[in-house]
Amino acid sequence: MAVYTEVSDEALAAFLAHYDIGALVSFKGIAEGVENSNFLLVTDRGPYILTLYEKRVDPADLPYFLGLMQHLAKHGVTCPLPVACRDGALARELCGRPAAIVTFLPGVWPRRIRNEHCAGVGAALAQLHEAGAGFALRRANALGPAGWRPLLDRCLPRADTVREGLAAELEAALGAILALWPSGLPAGHIHADLFPDNVFFLNERVSGLIDFYFACTDLYAYDLAVCLNAWCFEADGSFNVTKGRLMIAAYEAKRPLSAAEAEALPTLCAGAAIRFLLTRLHDWLHHPPGAFVTPKDPLEYLRKLRFHRTVRGAADYGR
Amino acid sequence: MAVYTEVSDEALAAFLAHYDIGALVSFKGIAEGVENSNFLLVTDRGPYILTLYEKRVDPADLPYFLGLMQHLAKHGVTCPLPVACRDGALARELCGRPAAIVTFLPGVWPRRIRNEHCAGVGAALAQLHEAGAGFALRRANALGPAGWRPLLDRCLPRADTVREGLAAELEAALGAILALWPSGLPAGHIHADLFPDNVFFLNERVSGLIDFYFACTDLYAYDLAVCLNAWCFEADGSFNVTKGRLMIAAYEAKRPLSAAEAEALPTLCAGAAIRFLLTRLHDWLHHPPGAFVTPKDPLEYLRKLRFHRTVRGAADYGR
Repeated sequence: MAVYTEVSDEALAAFLAHYDIGALVSFKGIAEGVENSNFLLVTDRGPYILTLYEKRVDPADLPYFLGLMQHLAKHGVTCPLPVACRDGALARELCGRPAAIVTFLPGVWPRRIRNEHCAGVGAALAQLHEAGAGFALRRANALGPAGWRPLLDRCLPRADTVREGLAAELEAALGAILALWPSGLPAGHIHADLFPDNVFFLNERVSGLIDFYFACTDLYAYDLAVCLNAWCFEADGSFNVTKGRLMIAAYEAKRPLSAAEAEALPTLCAGAAIRFLLTRLHDWLHHPPGAFVTPKDPLEYLRKLRFHRTVRGAADYGR
Repeated sequence: MAVYTEVSDEALAAFLAHYDIGALVSFKGIAEGVENSNFLLVTDRGPYILTLYEKRVDPADLPYFLGLMQHLAKHGVTCPLPVACRDGALARELCGRPAAIVTFLPGVWPRRIRNEHCAGVGAALAQLHEAGAGFALRRANALGPAGWRPLLDRCLPRADTVREGLAAELEAALGAILALWPSGLPAGHIHADLFPDNVFFLNERVSGLIDFYFACTDLYAYDLAVCLNAWCFEADGSFNVTKGRLMIAAYEAKRPLSAAEAEALPTLCAGAAIRFLLTRLHDWLHHPPGAFVTPKDPLEYLRKLRFHRTVRGAADYGR
């Protein structure tokens, strides 16, 4: 649920005067997204999404995020297309925050994941990786392996208040993951956060990918590992190998994994699990009481991490 | 900000199968409204609003609320029109709650109230009162004068924790208001909650009235008193008599107040102030820590109540 910033009529009118998108018809806050404030903006030309970037998004990263979306949309990925101002800018200030207007995508994100969804996501992810080639900007993964140790250090003092023994378990897991972390695997532009609420479906087919605000330049197979974590576990914590098989097969139908990528999959999956575990744990330990957004349960990702540490090879994911 | 209930794809699909409104295109939670869960529902025929009625709405009242909206829309009020199921029902269950689909209204509610808005609201309110005549159902005002004493009693023990002396001040004010409460004034269907976030404007004109879930059968002039409270005070607590004059004049251009209604205006305004003061105070004192919705400041309405108790007659509101 996220609308952190109230936008006055006057501020909105002044902002919209910079765009050639028709006359305002409707403006409503959207109860989706966690990091930014999102609004449905309808003009007499149709619906758009207006996003105000709140404090977690570095304004210096916006040219990368918005440029990547523009590049991907141009190369066949159904993602939001940033709408340029009359002066050509893709973002400008609104209520003291950087803001951008993007096109509205049809579709509904799946609340309960079925097997077909996993195949759709695998194919869409491979398409995104291929379409991203040729986009010239780069952005380091701020939440990649180099970021996990400092995150863990900020969590360690109180980690055991969440679960007895968690600090020691995370220390050991992170050490093992970083020791095995692969180098030299194919890299490029990745989404890095392709969770179910970021993938729209219509009639069982992917109709759009959204929320590119964690996108970065990193290992392609790591992006697949994020998706295996986000889509292929059941509510009881078990890994659904049918879902994994469908996702990987659909991905490989467009972009086959190299032997080295396949071999690294358990480490990449464990890394993806610890990345979300650490950011959730950090938010859990540091969110102010009475905060607006309920932090997500970090222990969901502890169960996933433990699974990955028992895996013997890519076959255990259904490859 | 309100989405209290997560609606799964399957539940939504099964629900929509009862309606003849086209194929689903989009479904997003809306961060507006406090009492219910609201969603933007787009089909290939256009946008709709889906509302899930949460615990504060008595399902037995839905025929009144939805029937009134239907009646008003038929008589020229731009309010949401409930969409009937194939079997004719205006509401049916979704995720264990009563739910209804209504038409989407264009417009934006004003975050900062300008004088023109007050004239528009006055005219729209009179039109609503006139259009409601002929609607046969009735609903007592659960938050009318008869409900204020029990509300106050539940707040008294801890009222002074909010402000020293508040309990005694509210006791005295409520006694005085109830002693002067008028009888025999013209009554009919009223909105009873026509705050700025329930009135949409487009190009300075009222484009729609929403949220009829406090509507009831009560004094017309009390509804005007609610609006004077909600629209005509400035942020510093002062009453803006220009706004009051514009609102009352626009109302009277369509539905002139009787001498008795005008005379009762200070009491009705004080009553409207104590009504919102008491419900806000109740929510303030009784909301669970970490609750989802931040309760509204009850003291805003204490300042308004004090103003009304100094007023000598309708002229002080700009009549």
